[in-house]
This record gives sequence, structure tokens and C-alpha cells, in this order.
Amino acid sequence: MNVDQLTKLLEDVKNHECEVNTALELLKTLPYEDLSYAKVDHHRELRNGYPEVIYSPGKSLNQIKGIVENMLTRSTGNILASRAERDVFDTIKSITPDAIYYEEARSVVVKREEYKTTEDYILVVTAGTSDIPVAEEAAVTAMVMGNQVKRLYDVGVAGIHRLLGNVPIINHAKVIIVVAGMEGALASVVGGLTDKPIVAVPTSIGYGASFGGISALLGMLTSCASGIGVVNIDNGFGAACMASKINKL
Amino acid sequence: MNVDQLTKLLEDVKNHECEVNTALELLKTLPYEDLSYAKVDHHRELRNGYPEVIYSPGKSLNQIKGIVENMLTRSTGNILASRAERDVFDTIKSITPDAIYYEEARSVVVKREEYKTTEDYILVVTAGTSDIPVAEEAAVTAMVMGNQVKRLYDVGVAGIHRLLGNVPIINHAKVIIVVAGMEGALASVVGGLTDKPIVAVPTSIGYGASFGGISALLGMLTSCASGIGVVNIDNGFGAACMASKINKL
Amino acid sequence: MNVDQLTKLLEDVKNHECEVNTALELLKTLPYEDLSYAKVDHHRELRNGYPEVIYSPGKSLNQIKGIVENMLTRSTGNILASRAERDVFDTIKSITPDAIYYEEARSVVVKREEYKTTEDYILVVTAGTSDIPVAEEAAVTAMVMGNQVKRLYDVGVAGIHRLLGNVPIINHAKVIIVVAGMEGALASVVGGLTDKPIVAVPTSIGYGASFGGISALLGMLTSCASGIGVVNIDNGFGAACMASKINKL
Amino acid sequence: MNVDQLTKLLEDVKNHECEVNTALELLKTLPYEDLSYAKVDHHRELRNGYPEVIYSPGKSLNQIKGIVENMLTRSTGNILASRAERDVFDTIKSITPDAIYYEEARSVVVKREEYKTTEDYILVVTAGTSDIPVAEEAAVTAMVMGNQVKRLYDVGVAGIHRLLGNVPIINHAKVIIVVAGMEGALASVVGGLTDKPIVAVPTSIGYGASFGGISALLGMLTSCASGIGVVNIDNGFGAACMASKINKL
Amino acid sequence: MNVDQLTKLLEDVKNHECEVNTALELLKTLPYEDLSYAKVDHHRELRNGYPEVIYSPGKSLNQIKGIVENMLTRSTGNILASRAERDVFDTIKSITPDAIYYEEARSVVVKREEYKTTEDYILVVTAGTSDIPVAEEAAVTAMVMGNQVKRLYDVGVAGIHRLLGNVPIINHAKVIIVVAGMEGALASVVGGLTDKPIVAVPTSIGYGASFGGISALLGMLTSCASGIGVVNIDNGFGAACMASKINKL
Amino acid sequence: MNVDQLTKLLEDVKNHECEVNTALELLKTLPYEDLSYAKVDHHRELRNGYPEVIYSPGKSLNQIKGIVENMLTRSTGNILASRAERDVFDTIKSITPDAIYYEEARSVVVKREEYKTTEDYILVVTAGTSDIPVAEEAAVTAMVMGNQVKRLYDVGVAGIHRLLGNVPIINHAKVIIVVAGMEGALASVVGGLTDKPIVAVPTSIGYGASFGGISALLGMLTSCASGIGVVNIDNGFGAACMASKINKL
Amino acid sequence: MNVDQLTKLLEDVKNHECEVNTALELLKTLPYEDLSYAKVDHHRELRNGYPEVIYSPGKSLNQIKGIVENMLTRSTGNILASRAERDVFDTIKSITPDAIYYEEARSVVVKREEYKTTEDYILVVTAGTSDIPVAEEAAVTAMVMGNQVKRLYDVGVAGIHRLLGNVPIINHAKVIIVVAGMEGALASVVGGLTDKPIVAVPTSIGYGASFGGISALLGMLTSCASGIGVVNIDNGFGAACMASKINKL
Amino acid sequence: MNVDQLTKLLEDVKNHECEVNTALELLKTLPYEDLSYAKVDHHRELRNGYPEVIYSPGKSLNQIKGIVENMLTRSTGNILASRAERDVFDTIKSITPDAIYYEEARSVVVKREEYKTTEDYILVVTAGTSDIPVAEEAAVTAMVMGNQVKRLYDVGVAGIHRLLGNVPIINHAKVIIVVAGMEGALASVVGGLTDKPIVAVPTSIGYGASFGGISALLGMLTSCASGIGVVNIDNGFGAACMASKINKL
Repeated sequence: MNVDQLTKLLEDVKNHECEVNTALELLKTLPYEDLSYAKVDHHRELRNGYPEVIYSPGKSLNQIKGIVENMLTRSTGNILASRAERDVFDTIKSITPDAIYYEEARSVVVKREEYKTTEDYILVVTAGTSDIPVAEEAAVTAMVMGNQVKRLYDVGVAGIHRLLGNVPIINHAKVIIVVAGMEGALASVVGGLTDKPIVAVPTSIGYGASFGGISALLGMLTSCASGIGVVNIDNGFGAACMASKINKL
Repeated sequence: MNVDQLTKLLEDVKNHECEVNTALELLKTLPYEDLSYAKVDHHRELRNGYPEVIYSPGKSLNQIKGIVENMLTRSTGNILASRAERDVFDTIKSITPDAIYYEEARSVVVKREEYKTTEDYILVVTAGTSDIPVAEEAAVTAMVMGNQVKRLYDVGVAGIHRLLGNVPIINHAKVIIVVAGMEGALASVVGGLTDKPIVAVPTSIGYGASFGGISALLGMLTSCASGIGVVNIDNGFGAACMASKINKL
Repeated sequence: MNVDQLTKLLEDVKNHECEVNTALELLKTLPYEDLSYAKVDHHRELRNGYPEVIYSPGKSLNQIKGIVENMLTRSTGNILASRAERDVFDTIKSITPDAIYYEEARSVVVKREEYKTTEDYILVVTAGTSDIPVAEEAAVTAMVMGNQVKRLYDVGVAGIHRLLGNVPIINHAKVIIVVAGMEGALASVVGGLTDKPIVAVPTSIGYGASFGGISALLGMLTSCASGIGVVNIDNGFGAACMASKINKL
Repeated sequence: MNVDQLTKLLEDVKNHECEVNTALELLKTLPYEDLSYAKVDHHRELRNGYPEVIYSPGKSLNQIKGIVENMLTRSTGNILASRAERDVFDTIKSITPDAIYYEEARSVVVKREEYKTTEDYILVVTAGTSDIPVAEEAAVTAMVMGNQVKRLYDVGVAGIHRLLGNVPIINHAKVIIVVAGMEGALASVVGGLTDKPIVAVPTSIGYGASFGGISALLGMLTSCASGIGVVNIDNGFGAACMASKINKL
Repeated sequence: MNVDQLTKLLEDVKNHECEVNTALELLKTLPYEDLSYAKVDHHRELRNGYPEVIYSPGKSLNQIKGIVENMLTRSTGNILASRAERDVFDTIKSITPDAIYYEEARSVVVKREEYKTTEDYILVVTAGTSDIPVAEEAAVTAMVMGNQVKRLYDVGVAGIHRLLGNVPIINHAKVIIVVAGMEGALASVVGGLTDKPIVAVPTSIGYGASFGGISALLGMLTSCASGIGVVNIDNGFGAACMASKINKL
Repeated sequence: MNVDQLTKLLEDVKNHECEVNTALELLKTLPYEDLSYAKVDHHRELRNGYPEVIYSPGKSLNQIKGIVENMLTRSTGNILASRAERDVFDTIKSITPDAIYYEEARSVVVKREEYKTTEDYILVVTAGTSDIPVAEEAAVTAMVMGNQVKRLYDVGVAGIHRLLGNVPIINHAKVIIVVAGMEGALASVVGGLTDKPIVAVPTSIGYGASFGGISALLGMLTSCASGIGVVNIDNGFGAACMASKINKL
Repeated sequence: MNVDQLTKLLEDVKNHECEVNTALELLKTLPYEDLSYAKVDHHRELRNGYPEVIYSPGKSLNQIKGIVENMLTRSTGNILASRAERDVFDTIKSITPDAIYYEEARSVVVKREEYKTTEDYILVVTAGTSDIPVAEEAAVTAMVMGNQVKRLYDVGVAGIHRLLGNVPIINHAKVIIVVAGMEGALASVVGGLTDKPIVAVPTSIGYGASFGGISALLGMLTSCASGIGVVNIDNGFGAACMASKINKL
Repeated sequence: MNVDQLTKLLEDVKNHECEVNTALELLKTLPYEDLSYAKVDHHRELRNGYPEVIYSPGKSLNQIKGIVENMLTRSTGNILASRAERDVFDTIKSITPDAIYYEEARSVVVKREEYKTTEDYILVVTAGTSDIPVAEEAAVTAMVMGNQVKRLYDVGVAGIHRLLGNVPIINHAKVIIVVAGMEGALASVVGGLTDKPIVAVPTSIGYGASFGGISALLGMLTSCASGIGVVNIDNGFGAACMASKINKL
């Protein structure tokens, strides 16, 4: 609730177009739904431009069912469940036939309206084949948020000609998501080749001193190329949120 | 050197408008200057849209002098020296009268042309007073890169009304840089209030379990608010690069 | 055994109302029961105001059975087994029909007398739905210890209006337990809104740079809001102990 | 601003006893003072029951002077500057003769009214002599906040009879602050001796595997004694805030 | 091979009582048996006073079988396999009927001669019931190495009277093994009560900030009580080796 | 594509022996095959002297099948799949009868031509029996790359005579791979015995403070013996690459 | 106060040979002296067999002076101040002429009686020259505690013949203190050569991945040689305490 | 002392050409000199092919003087003191006029014979200007060990054309030392461009999440390019030892 809305509300109270109790109620109970175990936030789309999103881990199937049912009755937009194993998909599918499962991306979409698509595109790049699931989480999320998405996979720096042969698709993107595990050097190299903003996603791919993605994370944070924003390890979803915000400016 | 330039070069060779040796030389020695201890990269501005930048730590005053002198003769744009202590400023000032020292930001600018300025603005927000030096590094860098910059300082979450009273300036920005030490929670709260892209800078402010900024860094990486890109601890410069790229889209 | 008791014992010895050997025995074998693999501490309730508690992990079902049987014969109060999987419940249920399983809280209570309840209440707050099991461990423990408990779940800072709409229930509590994973920022924000003591519980909810709760732990320890006491990751039980001690003052 | 105040304000607007613009202003600019580099929060005392506090590190002497001057004109209570080196004291003393320096505690108090004092006392306990500066920060802070404070220093567990000889002063306290470095075992032992809430402060005393207080911090967080709330390493101030909130219940 | 043996060998060569080739062979192939995947070290008992020991993890059952068979033919002493799951026991039992399985200690002994026993005893102390498996590994190992062993289990510092009631058995030991997880404070408290050497074993018991035994390890290393030697996390075997060496002096 | 090849290509363009478009294509699409999920790099053998290698983890069986099929049609050399579980072998075996499974080494080789072998040998040394799987990965990889390989297993420093009895085989090697877990001291001791280059591989063998190989890794990096190059934990493959490059000089 | 003493005291109370108040006083105020900032523990020598020891860091010179003065009047034994810089020595020397400064060991001894000396000796071994200060702290401490001490310095494993040439002095010791930085491998190698108990002291010597002694610490904890007890980084004092307890058995 | 030498010695003893005592002495006291604080190892050059080297930190100027004097009288080769501050140089220069100070490399050489030089060269590459001191330590060390050395500085991946323009000098080297701080990505990129062995040196250049070189270290260890051997952070000396051993094969 921004200042303009607050001004309007106060004017209404002054003009007796709104009861004090009603105003109080509005101010107290901003638009979320209380399921006791979850406060479903119907307001977020307005505020953040996202679809309603359910982060699946740690929620019981019953809780997910309850949240989706509430969303289905209260809003008309698409719904995204991230980090969803197949049983989450089955649960949602049992409520609504609109559920689609993007398996590699571990994402369920309840598709109730066509995805919009931007003219500019987000490019999703990976260093290796093993980074693709995280990249797909980013790509599907960005698509659901209404972005055009292109993919460039397995172009890690150990065979740098694979990357150099693809400079045009990099430079024509509006924003680039770089997904890499191990030492994460791909973010630095792409960062040196382009003037586009880069969202870097370290992945947990690797072993030993990769420490579950810490090496890639640190490498991206300390990149000698400037202008790289880093998100959490394996966080394809968050990278897509950041990239989508940028792409839609 | 992008594909278009490569095509043109090859055409020139074919049409005998360019000697093979010349082409080879061009392909081998892309536009940087070799000072043996430094390869000054005059190409970067074209490629990345930045001024030429010198990262000062670990370079001797003589090396910095040599690099600036080379830049002064080879290009006409502004020059930025980051993380510059006063002796770096004195060294540069002794070569050119155009040097300006932004002390709190630890930045030297050799200002040879007026800063450009965008219509949209980058907002730089800090949690506390102690975070201001890092914020100023970001603000000065962004300014030198040609952006309009606004500041909102000392609005940490322990007194959240200070932040809530400033929602409009947050929502009217095109991109927001959030600078915070300790637990870095400000990034999450701002992230929940706006749909603008956020570049988060953890600072080394704090003691004990702050671990020199690690707590803030981890807090920003794991934020429950999506769409936050994180840069290195105290890296106001990098945040400004990212924000400037976004602001100029 | 405090100084008054010691004085009394010495007086008794002096007055030959207590044999030296008896006194020696008393001083040597303060009231615990030796099962060789466990020293059951019947004294703790007097000393600490707690029910007798069994921390289940690392104990065999036989050992748990032995400890409960000993407690059942030696005291009459309620018994709490924490971190109890269903087989622990089954084992205890096989000895006594008074066993109740609070599944989400992973807690077994042998309820031999009604729970007492305080006039003031402890408020248990969570950032997300996934934090609820830890919160329930705290809530059930606090209830068994004789406290009135209220719950406020899923009010994380990414949608801060959900929290601001619940300020009264926060301010009317006597002590507040804040349960949050990821970056744990909720503790800071609640800490800035109220003058009540806060016990913060970081949870292991999250992935990647959450490092199993370390991010939340560090964030709570370095909170810019003062007056927050932090317990171990996922330690709902310990938070309830602290809150109960405070609530009963 | 709580719900009652919000109701009253809305009523006033309705009854035309308060202009919309005035209400808006009030809602927008809750009582803090904007010095650009600092938003001085005069509201905090009401909200949290604290004096106004300045955390000194990272602030320039000019900034501290500005903040204190603002506080002196806008409120009448005591002012506390924590982590204050002598030059901070000198700066404040130059503005007001009421400044007192508690050197060991590194705390400056501008004492404009007598300290209140509670009937119940907070007990501050240290493991060693080297922990005393942190303990004094806690003791002075608690005193300024209006609490009766008692001290029990150098009673670490390596000579446990020193502690056992002082059980009564421990048991008669309302809340206990345990300050310990190295392995921090004192918190566990005190926790096993009493049913009073304990606020534990790990200190950076020690070397090698003490890792600047991490060992003590981890030891306190994983204590086998329940009901211990831990604050940041060396954070005597925060421990006093927590203890004061509890002591005043 | 010590200097005396070397002198003797050289004398023999000089006196032609030993061929050069033989001496060379002896010097080259000190007494171990080469199974290609293992060099069985029959010399260790002479050198270190231990039985032959097999560390089971990472060895295939076939390799363990081969090693035991070799030992059975080449020496006559007892054999100990540590960290042995039941299948290791079954494998060894299939070769020799002398195999005994100490299940809680995860130790297999091929008992071919009676255990010797010392007059002085090693005391094994644990903080909790969950630490017993590690303690039993220590106790069984010490027993096999020919020591008298006594046990004192579940005397952690949260109920310090349980420990203080057992001071005599502590003070009459020759060396004490303290086994504790969580914060490991028991080592410090026992260290303050006695002048006997203490071997401390941190265990991985605990959760969250216990970090698999790191908290206990750090706590023991930084103990305020001097004269404590620490071994690896859960290393009951190593503690017994150290204690046995001391007990037999 | 090196400078000579670039010169030749430019000459061809100049002499109209190569079309501009063709040259552009060549420069853009250096010799790799795009399977969308993988860019198969047929160029690597030329560039690095390796066989084509597939790192198996994180790739689906379908992806591995696709990659191998592509390799089989496009090149004639041997193919190595590292970190291959049995199902990977079965998948490859179903395509080509030339697949061999080295189980302990977790390596699949599609052997289409005889392994070459060098006159000089690489020596692979392990500290213990449990380190053998990593050593075998190194040995098999080195063999496939055309090196003579010798093995010296289970010669850890706790029985240093086992090592000293094998000095000649160490000193006659051209390069030595030392594989050790726990504290990794074997690298230091071998490093002090020989003037040959040493590639050290820390293994994850050990428990507790071994931290999955970190102790061995740090020990090897900080070795008091100079001239040791360290690879990632358990990285037998990488050690063989390094050793093979050296052996073939 | 052990059980025998307690029995005697109780008998005295019973026989009216000791007043209740006197007994109470004795039980309450075990023999330490309360200087408010320090509880000087005159009892420790009896209990632990040590001289009175002052750990200097974190204590003001005035506090050290006060503690020494108290010790001088209350006991007659030697006094040791560890980790003492020269100003600590000067302060103590100003009170008593018996103060001696062992500079390399950073130890002050107030020598009021001749050091006793054992027949068996403690051997102190170092890997390098840089480890000597820590070794000297151990050697001086052990000497003051009444032990015969021998030294063997700079015998690190990179030149293992230096160590092998000194096997006899190692094997004739009763207990061995091994002092080593970097990777700390010396402890493992000595542990493999002897059956004597080893106390290992990691030192902070080294750089980079030595991490201030962590590498050596981990290496010693995970040593493949069994029966090594480890103390804190640079803790020569603690090693001497442990070794002295063992040597005097 | 290898097996051949041992055989010869034994033959001599047998033939009475060598006394038993002499042989014993030889076997006991291999060629090092005992200065009590240092065992000077004259044997190392034979064994390892190095000059005699003094690691300066932690040694007093007197100790360094003593060691150099001993070396000057006992051998005739060059002497290298690494990590030498100017006072170390002054000390050595005061003994011998042959001392030369390579300031940037922090290395002192006592040059008593001309440096040898190989036909093949070692290439030392740095990512930035700030990495040069570590690179120079490597270059000077390699030169003193008799290698031809070439340098390629400031070719980090953020401006990858600077590196690609220098492929020939990379490919013509026999072994390459890559020196890089921050994320250390240069090692991966060079590793993908060449089939020569690479010794990677992480540097402590950077700030924040560089953690004093840990990011670069982890990045190099987990490089997606195979065949890279990593040395300790800032360890230019060790890299030169490894490279020299390889270059001289």
C-alpha cells in the first residue's frame, strides 16, 4: 500500500465515504489470505509483477493443495510451483487440469492464460551439460513471467572456442543468466565479452573442493569482470526473477 | 571484436584493401597497450560502456602514474581510480590538474568531460551511517558512468518506520543499490516492497559473527525476497557497474 | 543443593540427627538414578522448573524404554521426549497409555497431569510455512511447561504487510519466539517493532548458501536490533525453555 | 505506531480534528530526525524502553557530534555511546559537561537524569579476568537502562569450586549474563545450576582454535543446558538489552 | 630398526656372518608383508606395543579377509578390526571361530590369547547416553590392548552434581578419557577437578551448530583447563591408544 | 586454432581459395558438434593430447548415449567415461562392444585402438588401502592416455619403513602421483626423498576432522617439501592428466 | 576437596571439633583469594600439581601486579607468567628480584625455589627453526614444573634423514612433544617411529592455506599414526602441562 | 642415500675398506650440519636438484646469518633466501658481497656462480598487475635454479583478447606458471588453450569474498580444465620448484 493509496483512503475516511472500522480493517489486513499455516499473498503480483509462486520444499502435499485451491478461487493468473517433485505435480494436477510439469526444471505451472512474451530476450548460458537443470528452472520461470528466452548450453571455458563462436547471441541479449558450477569461470569470461547485465548462478555441480557450489559462488562474487550480480547456489528461480525485472524495464 | 567487424576485416583482405600481415596484426593485437606490467585496455569502453578504470590496491604509485599517462595520451574520456588512498590522488594530481578526489568514496576522477546524466535514477540505500563509504563508492562510480543518482541513508530495519516513510523514492527508482552490513536484512525488506531490480552490497560493518561481511553476504544470497543480485563484500564499484548497465538499457 | 540445605545438613550431623555415613551418602549421591547408560536426573524439575525431558536421538529404543520406566516409578509429573520419531512414540505408548504424539512437533508427552497455563502468553512467530515444525516443537514444549502459547505463522519480511498487520498480537505477548530460516531477517524486523524480549531460532530451511541454517544463525546473531537471544539451529525446544523461564518470572 | 494510535488518528481525521495532510505527514514521517547521514530515532525509547544509543565504530567524530547535538535538543533523557574510544568521549565532553567515560566498558554516558534502579538484579558473571571489558560493557549498559547490577568475575570452570562457592548470588538474580571466551563452558555449568534465564556472551578471548570467539559462540549455542540465549561475540551491549527487557517484565 | 640393530647387522656383514645381499634385503624389506593392496605391518606390535589393527572403512570384504588370513598365519597375537559393521564381523568369523563382535563399539576382536590387564585403570567418562558408542570403542580397544578399564557414563555438566558425586573414581584413575559431544564442556570441568592426564574425544553428537562435532572439538582444544590432549572427532580408538601408552608407562 | 592456422586461412581468403562466408563459418564454428545439451569437442585431442572424455555425474543416461554415439561417428580414437557407475557402462556397452569397465577405477573405456605406452613410467603411490579407488582412476586414465604406469600401494608414513624400502621405484619414475587421505603427510615425505615432480591427490578417506578430504588437501598445499602440485580431492583423473602431460614431454 | 576430606570434616563437626559455621565457611570458601577482578586459586597446585600460573594476555599490568603480590604473600612456590611480553616482565621484576625472563619462550618465572628435575625426560621436537618459540614455551614450562627436558629442533620431514638419524633420543624419552606448523606431518612420522605417547602442538607458522595453524591442527588430528593427543595452536604451555602429568606418573 | 649407495657401503664394510663405526656414523648422520636451531641440509641439492634455500619468515637475523655462514663454508653453489625483507638482505650482504636483492620478488641470491639456463622456457603468466610480486618470486626462483624464463603479465580473462593475442608464447613454453588472484579463472582459460602442464598459483589479491586467496585457490582446484597442479596461496617459490623439475626432465 503506497502513499497515494494511503492518501486516498484518508480522504475517503474524511469524506465519510469509508467507515473508520473499514479503514482500520483495510490497514490491518492488507490483501493476503490467512490459512493459518500460510498467509497467501495475492498482493505480490501487483507489487512485484510476478505470478503467484509456491516454493515447494518443506511444505506438505496437503499444505500445497490448500494454497493452490485458495489461489485458484482468489485470482485468475498463472501459478508457479518451484522445486516441485513429481508428487507435487500429481497433487496439483488432481485439483486442476491446467497443471503442466516441466520435469528437468522441477517446475509446475498452472497455466490459466497464455504466457506473454517480450521482444527482447533473456539468454541462459551454461558451462556444462550437468548445469542444465538449474538453467531450465531459470528458463521456465522467465518464460512464465512473460519473457522471451534463448538458451546456449555447454560452452564452458575449458574449450573457449565454443563460447567465442557464439558471441553474437550473447551481445544481442538484453540480459544474460550465466549458470556454472566447479570454478564458475564462465561468468568472468562472458562478463569480459559483453556490456549487458549478467546474473550469475553458481551450481552445486562438482565434487571435493567445489564444496557444493561454494567455489563457483566465490568465483562469481570475486570476478575480475565488473557488473555481475550473483544469486544463491542453484537458484535458477531467483536469477529469472532478477533477469525478468531487468528485461521488462 | 564482434562478428560484423570480423566479416568486414575478411572482406577487406579479400578485396586486397587490407594486407594479410596487417589483418594478422589486428587480430593478434587487439587494442590494448602493453606497458609490460599492465596491458591497458582502451577497448573496454567500447565493449562495456565504462570509463577506463584503475583498481588501485597492489599497484605501485609508479605503475599507477604510468597507466594514467598512457590513458591520457591515448583516449579523451574520464578516468576513474577506485580504492584510491590520498597518495594515489596526489600522484595523479601531479600529472593532470583535472584530478578530483572524492574522499569518502576513496575515488579519484580525472574529469576531462562533463558527466552525462540519465533521466531515470539509481537509488543508493544504506542500513546505517557506517555503510556510507561503500555507498559513496557506488554513488560516485555511477555518477562518473553517466547516471543520475539519489541517496537514502541510515534506514535499517531496526527502525522500520524510517524505511516505510520513504517508499515513494524507492518505487520511482529504475534500479536500487542496497548497502548493508551486519545481517544485511535491509535487502530483503526493500526487495519485498518494490518490483525494481535490486543490487545488494554486503559491507564489512559489524564485529564478531559478522565475520567481515560474511553474515551480510549470506543473508543477501539467501534472501526470501526474489530478484536480488549480490556483489562482493564492500564492492560499491561493482554494484554501480551492474546498476549502470541496467539503468541505461 | 544450596547453602541453606547444606547448613541444615551440617546442623543435623552436629546434633546427631543424621549419621555421618548418611550425610556422606547424601552429599555423594544427589538425587539421580543410575541406569549405567543414563543418570536419570529427578532433581532437575526442582532445580530448573522443567518436566523431565528425554532427548531421543542417539538413544536406543531399549534405553528410552528404560529411562521412561524409571521416571514413571520415581516421579508423578509429565514427561517429554523431544525429537521423537514415531517408533519412539510407539515404544513409550507400549508402556503407558498416557503417551500423546504431537507429530509435527516430533514430541511425545506422557501426560499424567493437566498442563498448567499462564495468564501471559508466549508468541511463536515463523517466517514461512516450512519453519512450522520447529515452531511447533517450541509451542508444544512451552505448553507442556505450563505456558499459554499463541501462534503467528508465515509472516516473513518479503511481504512485510503480513507482519505489520499483526503488530498488536506481537506487542501484547510477554516474550516472543521468532523462527526463521534462509536469511533470518524476521528477527531483526520484529526486534525493531517491539520492546519485548525475543528468542530467535534459526532453522535449516533453505538451500545453497543457507548452509543448513548458518546464514539465519549469523543473521540473528548480528542483528541490528538489540536484545535478541539466539539458540541453536532448529532448536525449538531450547527456545521454549528460555521463553518459559522468562514468561514465568 | 500501534493499532490504538492508528484508530485514534483515523477518528481525528474523520472528525476533522486532524487534517489529511497532517495525518499523512504523521504517518509518513514517524518521529525520527533526518541528518542525511543519520536518521536519529527519537521514537526508539518509547518503542523499546531504551535510552538513545549511538554505536560509535564507523562514524566520524563529526557525525557523532551532530547526532549528540540533535539528541540534546530533541530529548531530555540519558544518552549512551557504545564502543567509544577516548576521542569519542572527548568529542562528546566538548559539547556537554554531563558526559562520563566508563573506560573499561568503552562507554560514554551523557547523564542528564539519575539512573533508575530495579529491585531485582541482573548478575554479570565472567569466566576470566580477560573477559571483564565485555562484562563491564554489559554492566554499564544495564545500569544506564535502569537496572540493579551485581558482578561475579573470574569463576571459570577450570576451578569449579570458585563457582560452586557462589551459588546463592546466582540463584537470587532475576536474569544472568554469562561472559566467557575460550570454550565458553561456563554458560553450560551455570545453566545446570539455576532455573533463571541466561544470556550468554561469547568473547574473543583466546588464541588459535578460539578463532576470535567462534569456539565460545559454538559452545554456547550447542550447550547441553537448555534455556540459554546467545548474543554476538563480545556483544556486552546486546546482552544487557536482552537482560534489561527480561528484568523489567 | 634402531641403531643397536643396525650396529649388529653391520658387524655381521663385516664378520661375513651375513651376506651383503641378505643385509640389503633386510634393510630394504623391513618386516611387512606385501599383499599389493596392503602392506601388512607385523612390525608394529614390537614398535608400538599394539595388537595388529585393521581400520575397516574403505576396505572391501575380500581385502579384509586377505589381511586377516595373512595375520593369522604370520603372528599369534590378538587382532582388532575397528569401525567394523556386522558384515565385517561375519567375514572374519567365517575364517576363524575366535572372532568376537562388540557391537556397540563396532569392534571385532580375534581373541587368540587372554587379554592382559593392568593394575591401574583407564577411566572412560561420557557426557551423555548418546556418546556411549564412541566410549565403548575406546573401552574395548583399551581392554584388547591389555588395560583395566572403568566406565562412568552420562555425567554431563548440565547436571553437575552427577559428576561431583563421582570425584573419587576420577581421581583414582591413572588416565581419563572424556567423551563428549555438543559443546564438550565436560573435558574442561573434569580437567579442573583432577591432576591426571586427560585424553578428550569430541563426538559428532548434536545438531545444528554442533557441525558434526566441530563445536566439541574446538571447545576441547581451547579448554581453560590445561593438560588436555585431544583426538579426532569420534576417535575412540585413537584415544585408547594414547591412554594405553600412558597407562603402561 | 592457432596463429599459423589463422595466417593460412587469411592467405586462402586473400587468394580466393576460401570464400569469406566459409572462413566466417570456420571461425565461428570451430570443430565441436552441437547436441544442444552438449557441445562435443572433437578438437580437444589435437589441442590437449587427450582422448575424448565424458565426465559422467549429472548427465542422464540418454545424454551419455547421445554423446558417445556422436563421438563414435566423428572420431576413431578411444573414449573415456570417468566417474561412471555400472549403469553408465551398461548404456555404453549397449552401443558398442568395445566398452570395458574398470570397476575399481569407476572408468569406462571404449577401446578402439591399442593403448600406447611410454618408456618412462608414472608411479602411483597410496598411503592406505582405502585410497586405492582414487589411485586406480589415476592409473587407468594414465594408461588410456598412453603412459606406462607402476603402482606402489599402502605405504603411509605411520610405518615409514614400508616407504623407505621402496625408494628405488620412486626415484626411477619420471613423475609421481601421491594419493593420500587423512592428513596427507605421504606427499611431504615422498617430496623429501626425490627430485621428481609430484602430483598430489588428497582423498576423502577419513572421518571427523578429515572433513571429506580438506585436511589432506590443506596438508598437501602447505607441505614443507617444495615442488608439489595439488589437484582436487579424489581427482585421480586430473592427476593423471597432469602427470601424462609431464611424462610425455 | 575430595570425599576423604569431606568425611573428615563431617566427623569433626559431629565430634564438635569443628563449628558448623567454620565448616560452612570452609565449604563455601574453598581456598581462593578474591581480588574482585581475579579469584586467585591457591588450591590448584595441590589439585593439579602445577605452579601458580598467570596467563598474561588481556590482563592489565596493574592486574598482573596485584595477582603476583597476592601470590607472593600467600604461597612460597615458583610462579609462572605465560605469554608475557617484556613489560609484563618489567612489572613483575619491579616487585620481586626473583623474576627471570625467558624471552624466546615469552615466559616469566618468579624462581623462589630450585626447579626439581625428573630422571625421565620429556623430548621437545620441532619441524623447523620458526617453530622454536612455541617449543621453548613448552620446554620452559615443563622445566618449571620439575621435568628434565631435551630438545631436538629442525628435523622436519622434507629432509627425513635428519629425523631418522635421531631415533634413539626419541625412543628413550618418556613422552614426546612434537611442535610443527605448515602441514604438521612430523607428528605422524614420529608417531610411526615410537611407542611413546606424543603430545602434538600445531603452530601458526606458514602462510596462505596454513590458515594460521589450521592445516597443521587438522593434520595432527587426522594423523594416520594412532595415540597422538593434540593441543591448541601455538599452545606450548598446554602441551607441557599434559607431558608433565604423563612424565610424573 | 639410495640403494646403490647402500650396497656400496655394505660392500666396503665387508671388504674392511670401511670401519663399522664409520659406516654407522655415515648412516646415522647423513650430510646435514647441526646448528642446534637449524639442521642445515647440504644433501638437498644432490637429492632435489635445488640450490640451498632459506625460508626467511620466523627466523631471527642472527639465525639467518648463522645459516648463511655455514652454507658459505660448506658448499660452493648459489644460495637463495626467499620471502626476504630488506633487513634480511642487509644481513646477508654484510657477510658476503655476492648478495643480490630482487626486491619485487622479495628474494636474496648469493650468486657465487653464473645461473645456468635451459633451452626450453618456463612461462610465467599473471592475471593482473597486482599479481606481479608473486610472479616475480616464481621467475627469480626459476632463474636461480637454472631455467630460461619468459613473462606474460596482466592478461586476465575480463579482457580475454589480451590473452588470445598471446597464444603462441603460451604454446611454445614447456611448462606454464599461471598466477592469479580474485576468482583465478585465468588458469582454466589457459588450461583450455594448451596441452602444456600448468602450475597454478592462487594469490591473495582481492578483498571481501576473496578471503585472502581462498576463492582463487578453490577455483583453480575445481577448474573445468584438467591437468592443472595447484600450489599454496602466494607460493611463487613452490611453483618455480615444480616447474623447474618439469622443465629439466
